[in-house]
Parts: sequence; C-alpha cells; structure tokens
Amino acid sequence: MMAATAVGAESPARAAGARYQGDFAAPALDVVRIALIGVGDRGSGHARQLAAIEGTEIVAIADLYEDYARRAADHAREAGGENRHPAIKLYHGAPELWRKMLHEMRPDAVIISTPWRDHAPMAIEAMRQGAHAFVEVPLAVTIKELWQIVDTAEQTGRHCMMMENVNYGREELLFLNLCRQGMIGELLHAEAAYIHDLRFQMEHVGRGTGSWRTPHYAHRNGNLYPTHGLGPVAQYLNLVRGEDNFGTLVSYSSPAIGRNMYSDSNYAAEHRWNQLDFRGGDLNTSIIKTTLGRTVLVQWDETSPRPYTRLNLIQGTRGALAGFPTRIALEGGVPGITRDHHEWAEGEALEAFMVEHDHPLFRRMGELSRRMGGHGGMDFLMRFRMIECLRQGEPLDQNVYEGAFWSAVSELSERSVAAGGAPQAFPDFTRGDWRQTKPLGIVG
Amino acid sequence: MMAATAVGAESPARAAGARYQGDFAAPALDVVRIALIGVGDRGSGHARQLAAIEGTEIVAIADLYEDYARRAADHAREAGGENRHPAIKLYHGAPELWRKMLHEMRPDAVIISTPWRDHAPMAIEAMRQGAHAFVEVPLAVTIKELWQIVDTAEQTGRHCMMMENVNYGREELLFLNLCRQGMIGELLHAEAAYIHDLRFQMEHVGRGTGSWRTPHYAHRNGNLYPTHGLGPVAQYLNLVRGEDNFGTLVSYSSPAIGRNMYSDSNYAAEHRWNQLDFRGGDLNTSIIKTTLGRTVLVQWDETSPRPYTRLNLIQGTRGALAGFPTRIALEGGVPGITRDHHEWAEGEALEAFMVEHDHPLFRRMGELSRRMGGHGGMDFLMRFRMIECLRQGEPLDQNVYEGAFWSAVSELSERSVAAGGAPQAFPDFTRGDWRQTKPLGIVG
Repeated sequence: MMAATAVGAESPARAAGARYQGDFAAPALDVVRIALIGVGDRGSGHARQLAAIEGTEIVAIADLYEDYARRAADHAREAGGENRHPAIKLYHGAPELWRKMLHEMRPDAVIISTPWRDHAPMAIEAMRQGAHAFVEVPLAVTIKELWQIVDTAEQTGRHCMMMENVNYGREELLFLNLCRQGMIGELLHAEAAYIHDLRFQMEHVGRGTGSWRTPHYAHRNGNLYPTHGLGPVAQYLNLVRGEDNFGTLVSYSSPAIGRNMYSDSNYAAEHRWNQLDFRGGDLNTSIIKTTLGRTVLVQWDETSPRPYTRLNLIQGTRGALAGFPTRIALEGGVPGITRDHHEWAEGEALEAFMVEHDHPLFRRMGELSRRMGGHGGMDFLMRFRMIECLRQGEPLDQNVYEGAFWSAVSELSERSVAAGGAPQAFPDFTRGDWRQTKPLGIVG
Repeated sequence: MMAATAVGAESPARAAGARYQGDFAAPALDVVRIALIGVGDRGSGHARQLAAIEGTEIVAIADLYEDYARRAADHAREAGGENRHPAIKLYHGAPELWRKMLHEMRPDAVIISTPWRDHAPMAIEAMRQGAHAFVEVPLAVTIKELWQIVDTAEQTGRHCMMMENVNYGREELLFLNLCRQGMIGELLHAEAAYIHDLRFQMEHVGRGTGSWRTPHYAHRNGNLYPTHGLGPVAQYLNLVRGEDNFGTLVSYSSPAIGRNMYSDSNYAAEHRWNQLDFRGGDLNTSIIKTTLGRTVLVQWDETSPRPYTRLNLIQGTRGALAGFPTRIALEGGVPGITRDHHEWAEGEALEAFMVEHDHPLFRRMGELSRRMGGHGGMDFLMRFRMIECLRQGEPLDQNVYEGAFWSAVSELSERSVAAGGAPQAFPDFTRGDWRQTKPLGIVG
C-alpha cells in the first residue's frame, strides 16, 4: 500500500526464555500488595483510591519528600478504613530509596508516578524484583527504554501496564463499544490530541510537574505527550491486537514561541526559566499510517491559549464519532435524533442514545466511578480494573506493547521533525506477534 | 528550521519579456465584456449574477449543450434587465467551439467552469487571446499545467484568478480581519478541509459533475480538492505574499472503501461506475510546513458519511479562531462572553462580537450578498469584487500564484502518498518574488 521509504526499524531477537506477553495473565492474587513510587499530585490520587478498592493492601510508599509520603499514607489509611493498611512502610529522603523498598517489601504491584525519565528504570527494576509494574504516561521517553521495558516484561513474566486512564472515560468506552458493534462500518481514520494549556505548571519551580517537565519543552521538539489521545483510538482500531498495527509516522511542529513569551512575561530575566531557550514547537501535528493503511492524526500542544481537547474522532464507512463535544453522525441518521449523516447528534438529545449504548463496564461501575472521582471517574475505573484483573488472574486491559507503541510516538515525532517530516517506521515491539493477540474484550 | 530532505523543485527561469504578476493590476475597464465557457451547475450561477452586476456585458457563452447555453443566456438577460446584454452569442455543439468564441469575440474576461482537466488549456488560451481568465477551483490538475498558466499570465500580462469563493465567506473575512488586527497574536498553525459527502454526484452519469469527476476518485490518490479550505487560511497567514510561503508537504490517505461500497450498493454490476476500481483513499490528511515553519493541516474527503466541514482553524500565540461552528478563544477571554481561553465563545453570544469585528467588505456588501445568494452570499461577493477590481484597475484579491500554490497540494499530496508519506517541496511559482508581494489589503 505504500512505498518503503520510511526509515526502517528492525526488532532485536527475543532473549532465550523470554515469552511474548500479548495476552499475558499472571496467577490470580487474593490480596494485591501495593507499593508506590512517587506520591505527588498524581501518585497521591493512586494511593488514596487503590487503598479504597477491595482486595488491596498498601504496603510501602517511596517519595523524595517525607511530607508527601506521610500525607499519602494518611490518606490511604483513611480511605481504606479500619485496619486495611496497618503497616505502610515509608521511604524518603534519598533518591534511590525506592530500590531498597522494592528489595525489602517485595510488593505484588508497584505504582510509578514520577518524572518521565524515571519511568523506565523504575518499571524495569520493579519487574526484576518480581512485581507487576504500573507506570504513569508516557511509559518511557525513548525507544531504547521502551525496548528495555518490553524485554524485561518478557523475561520476568510480569505485567507492565502504562496507566492510560483516558481509555476508561465514558465517551471512550462508548465509542469502543459502538465500533465493536459495527455501528460506523469499517474503520478508516482516527484523530487524537492532547491540547491542554499547561503553562501554569512552570510555577512549580521547586517540586512538582513544572520543575522537571519544563526543560523537556526546551530540549525536545515533537509530540511529548501522545498517549491520552492516542490510547483510546488505538483500541478502537485494534492496533497491536490481531487486526492492525502501527506502521509509519510523519510529523511537523509549529514554531516555538509561546513558552519563551510566557517566561519573558512572567519571570525575571535571571529566573531559571529564562535561562532556557524553548525550542520545541508549540503545536506538533503528526499522522500515523497503520499496517492496514488507516490514518491517525495526532496533535499535541501544552502551550497555546486554546480550549482543552483530545479530539477523539473515529471515522468509518458508515459514520463518525467525535469528542469535545461528544457527537455522532451515522449514515441514515442517529435513530430518533438526526435524519441523516449531514448533521451531528450531540448535546442533551444524545443522552438517551448514549445510555442505550454505554459500555457494559461503564454500566456496572460508572455510577460508583463518578462518586469516587478522578478526572470524572476514569481514574477510579482504571484503578478498579487493574486490581480486578490482578485478583482474577486475567490479562490487563492494556498490555506492555500498547504502552510502548503509544509512547513511541514521542521519539518518532522528534525524529521526523528533525528530518524535515521524513516518515519514521515504528519498531515492532511485538516482533510480529501482534497478529495473534486478541482484541481487548468488551468486559462486563 | 528543517533538514533539507524534501524532494527539491527548482523553478524554471522566467521567459524573456515575462513579468512577475504578484501585485499586477490591468488598465481599468469601464464595461467588462464577459464570455463564459461552461454553464452547467456552476457556470450558470456565474452568468446570472455577473449579468446583474453594474458595468458588465455578457457577450458570449460556450457550452457543449445547446439547452445549457440558451438557459444561461436567458437568465443573464433576465438578471441584467432591459438591454444590458443585447447580443449574447452562443457557441455549442462541438467541444472546441470555445476557441472560436475567444477568437471571434475578444472578451475582456472569460469565466471558465468546466471539468478540471479543461481548466488549464482554456485559461491559457483565454489569456493568449487577450482576456483575463477566471477559473473555477482547482486552477489545474497538475503542477506542469500550473507552471504553464503562471508562465502565460507573466508573458501576456493578463490576470488569471482562480475563483476561490470561500475566501469571501463572512466567517473567513472576519477571521482575516481579526488576524490582521493581531487579535490572536503571532500565527502558528492553521487547519483546512473539504469534507463533503459528494457520492450523490455519481448519479450524474451523462452530464454534470459526476460524469467527469467520478473517474478522478478511481485513478488518483491524494487530496483532489484542497482549495476551499486552504485558500482562506493561506491568506490569514499571508502565504505567497511577503510574509511567508509554502515550503513542504507530507500526506497519507486512508484506505479506499467508500466509493466501491457505494457503487456496489447503488448500481448494477455492469454499470459504468462498477467498471472502476476506486483506488483513491476516502480521506486524505496532509500537513504543510511553511517557510517560517508554521504548519497547515489540510484534509479532504468527498466520500464518507460525515457532516460537512472546512475546519477553518487559525491558531496564534494569543488565541484561536475556528469554524464549523464558528468559535473564538482568546487569552484573557472574549470580551463580555468568556472569562478565559479555556472555553470557546460561540453561538448567539458571539454575534455582537462578530458584528463589531466584521470585515469592512462584508459590512459594505454583506446584506446585498445575502439577498443575491450563492453559498450564503460568498459567491456574489466574489463576483462583485472581480468586476470592481477590473473596473477600478486594481489588483485582484487572489493572484495567479495563490491559485497555483493552493491547487498544487493535489499533485504534491498524490506524490507524497505514493512515496509513503515522503515530504514534497512546493515549486516556487513566484521564483522568489513572493517576498516583495503585498499582503491582501483589508478592502472597504
């Protein structure tokens, strides 16, 4: 379908004893003993909700800062209720104490919510110490690290799930369900984005997101945060799962203006942020071509003053589904709402249709998720499923390869941008085995 | 800003005696003597409205079909009122009679509304016969033809305007005006599209659009119709006009499914359309990188069941403007409507802001345009400006280079798709002279 001009990317051979993990399921755990590395803004939310879910025990928390570690432990005990988490051991004060924690505590699962560059070494060491690794997005920064993670998962027989919470949004689950029902026919094209003005994070100079994320904008030029938009549409398309896979990517970035402007306007000339030259383009636009020839638009912008969007569009031969706001167009119309596909069904008129077609998981857990909260409930639903799958000994909803492919867009886009838009081939992290991997089930 | 990996495209030298036409103005005409080639669905509208505009005389009409030619002449006489168009000479019945018409009638301006592949030879011959050429979109199909048109315009000193009507929409004029006022800061990125389900045109088997447009979907794979979306955003960005220019393009197409499905479902196996294998992908997505490093997303889909959109998005360092529906987000909020840039101002709430910032041309002519009609008034406004500029001896609002660059996206996208997404360089139809060309004025 396309000429072979993309830069090739061979897969290194699988090590002796390593096994493909596409549909991997670990032995069921009655109680999941959990340790957390990093309990800042994001990790503290994981601690609190995981502590509340049946069948967990929070056994240890590691953080650079004692106050963060203590706060997270307090919240976990509070959320768990009487005696659920009697002995949370805290590790804080030195950067490498998380290694000691893994060695001493031997947890079943480790939740990693640390700066991006720490994801890979922590996930790899967690698996080596016998734990399942659950890693914040992106799974890692470089393709080399992603390969190391894949290799380690295959060698250790441990789960490594990148925790893409957006796949658990109501709209995303609904769209997955509609795609599986054939509602929009054969799938042709998808659109994903993370357009979210995060300039305010630069306020966090000492601790927190801004302190480590800000330099990325200066030194890298591409899509630095692709997975929130891409994860859901990749699962609509069954990418890396039997039907189709990632092929190549082309990418261009806009000029880099916004971060420099913001620093000039908000910080003194001698401020740390004004020592940086922000060279990453404000908005990156990439297009992925899949093995079946489908296309996926992926955009990223954390700098420009625009309303938030993840686009979340999936287009088929019989209709299209899109987000921000949620809207549906079907050939022949959306029953009872639109007469034909020339207008979108959206707003209040769509609610009954959504209720009728909601994903079974959302029907079962949606109300509780909303009460529990976390990005409108998607966080709780994800955490609930992580524990449910571990306790039932079932495959997780996102395998290690999906996290790797979704995250690989960062380095591939950086390479394409640097090469004037030249196509870059995705490495096949599955070494061809994606063809035998089951699509994600529509779990009840 | 980018590595030089795109396929190069040198400009051939300008012929002796040829002159750059960037800000070209022809001597003023008191009455514009107009001939039309092609008066089907589109050309008949041109005939009727041009006949009604002050300072025109319709002198001749050429069409393959006598009934079309007679109908258009009747409508022109009717629209013009008493004695405005006393002697419209008709040419019909043979394919090449338009040449005879040009030679015999020596019109001031020729309006060309014929199948795409006829645009270039007709525009070239019209200029050679001393007429200004006004050509429907796209200006031509191939880059070779576009060069021939540019060369002919430079050699003959005649206008050649591709009639991009969308540049005269209220929203498009408003956005141009807001961009020029600096309302959204420095411009970074734009999005353009022509997503319009035109499968129904396949009904026109004998005459009309479907009869000649349908085979294009079978034999070409790229963006076949880029200009409606691209023309307006190119003028927001001042592309080809002093500030910036088209650089390179990358492109991927989705699988080709929809046209084959539609033919199977709607026509007998032996029908002409079922003898075609529709190989052009249903949706094409391209990204343009400009000389200044800005990005322009361009999409095209005339097959899929989706609501119409041209996207019409322009993003700057201080805000973003978007279409379908019309939306505005500004840093600090849209005065009186939104508090900040995290939400769009849209709908009825936006009307007063729009009235306050409408383009002066729309203020002057908008009410009349709406009454006259044609895609909501944009057609009339374009036709009015064509005649106004010719009569005042002023540059047209769209020069020949703009038509060439906007149309070149077709062949460049076809080439990129065929090359697996490899970047393609735009030929510089101005031979470097775009740097001295004035931005389009905000005319009153």
